[in-house]
Amino acid sequence: MSERKKSLFGRLQRTRRERWKSEEFTELEYEPTTVKELLTEMKDISELIIDLAYSAVLFDSDEIAEEVRFLDVRMDKLNYDIRMMAMLAARTKEDAESLAGILQVAEAAETIGNAAGEIVNLLELSKKTRPLLPKILSQADERLFRVEVSEESEACNRSIGELNVESETGMRIIAIRRNKCWIYNPDANSTIKGSDWLIVRGTEEGYADLRAFLKGKVEVLD
Amino acid sequence: MSERKKSLFGRLQRTRRERWKSEEFTELEYEPTTVKELLTEMKDISELIIDLAYSAVLFDSDEIAEEVRFLDVRMDKLNYDIRMMAMLAARTKEDAESLAGILQVAEAAETIGNAAGEIVNLLELSKKTRPLLPKILSQADERLFRVEVSEESEACNRSIGELNVESETGMRIIAIRRNKCWIYNPDANSTIKGSDWLIVRGTEEGYADLRAFLKGKVEVLD
Repeated sequence: MSERKKSLFGRLQRTRRERWKSEEFTELEYEPTTVKELLTEMKDISELIIDLAYSAVLFDSDEIAEEVRFLDVRMDKLNYDIRMMAMLAARTKEDAESLAGILQVAEAAETIGNAAGEIVNLLELSKKTRPLLPKILSQADERLFRVEVSEESEACNRSIGELNVESETGMRIIAIRRNKCWIYNPDANSTIKGSDWLIVRGTEEGYADLRAFLKGKVEVLD
Repeated sequence: MSERKKSLFGRLQRTRRERWKSEEFTELEYEPTTVKELLTEMKDISELIIDLAYSAVLFDSDEIAEEVRFLDVRMDKLNYDIRMMAMLAARTKEDAESLAGILQVAEAAETIGNAAGEIVNLLELSKKTRPLLPKILSQADERLFRVEVSEESEACNRSIGELNVESETGMRIIAIRRNKCWIYNPDANSTIKGSDWLIVRGTEEGYADLRAFLKGKVEVLD
């Protein structure tokens, strides 16, 4: 698994109403780090945030929508930091040219974050507007699924890496909900527990295998 | 596998320079279809196009960049069609409310397409601007890989579905390059041939297994 530190992902986070607001109204403070780390985090978020945004609508989940808003605001902050860093780093015309491309990718990643934010804003519209869309997405999307882990499953109290979930089934776990907490983009060390709800992505065949295992119907995942 | 028709994906397409231009300058003509089909295609493209955009930069590929531009223009067309369809379909205030949410998602998908287009525009910048970025992305991205299929591999002339690539290894094949042709988002029926180049997405462990099989070093994928 990745050695690099993921500052946001794979961590248990308490679901807090409007966490993004506190993030948004914190005065932007420039935290020195490396351009590479910043761009890596932006790229990771830009990929995750779209899955989360569609999941929020598909499963009509205000909590996932909150996380999307948080990540969207986080992207703005990262984009600010990466611009600061680039300006401070560039000493010559060559440096500046070389950094301009990075700023362009960062800008695009922020745009993707904003688009994901637009998608989840749907959940704030009146209920009348909503029913059609989850119906369409649930018919259209054969790749996002939600499943509860049975207390009887052999998966309980074992890590995702130990179970080789992704290489055994092709399913990627996008998020885990445990009581009132969410773990977004869990990593190999994240543990699965009974009564967790998982949001997973992959094929229908892979899902059937994973589901049987998580429901305790088969004892080994292979 | 999916029953729905994928109008663009999983089809062998000849790499043609600036195909997006011919698409862009075709007069927009409204083709009646269903809102569901349009939204499904937009959603599929919005997910694929980001992987393709990062791949284009990572592998410094003008051809993948072309495909991103083509899909970006295609999104504009789909968004136009979905707006037309919504306006023609809405008879009452309730209809209109219900369709407004769909237009919002379509708009966000188009924005994602534009952001992907911005990412690949990098490849048009002077060579000076480029070297740093593929280096950063190749260190950062542990999920996108490129591999050539050996003529000796048991994978040759078998379909992706038959080999169960995704459920055996967790790797998703994003694109196949065969001579001058590309197959984007290949489906279960797409066949792998010797000398194909595959762009795949997944974990390092999954990639190691898949690579050994595609290189003919192991005979079975499991």
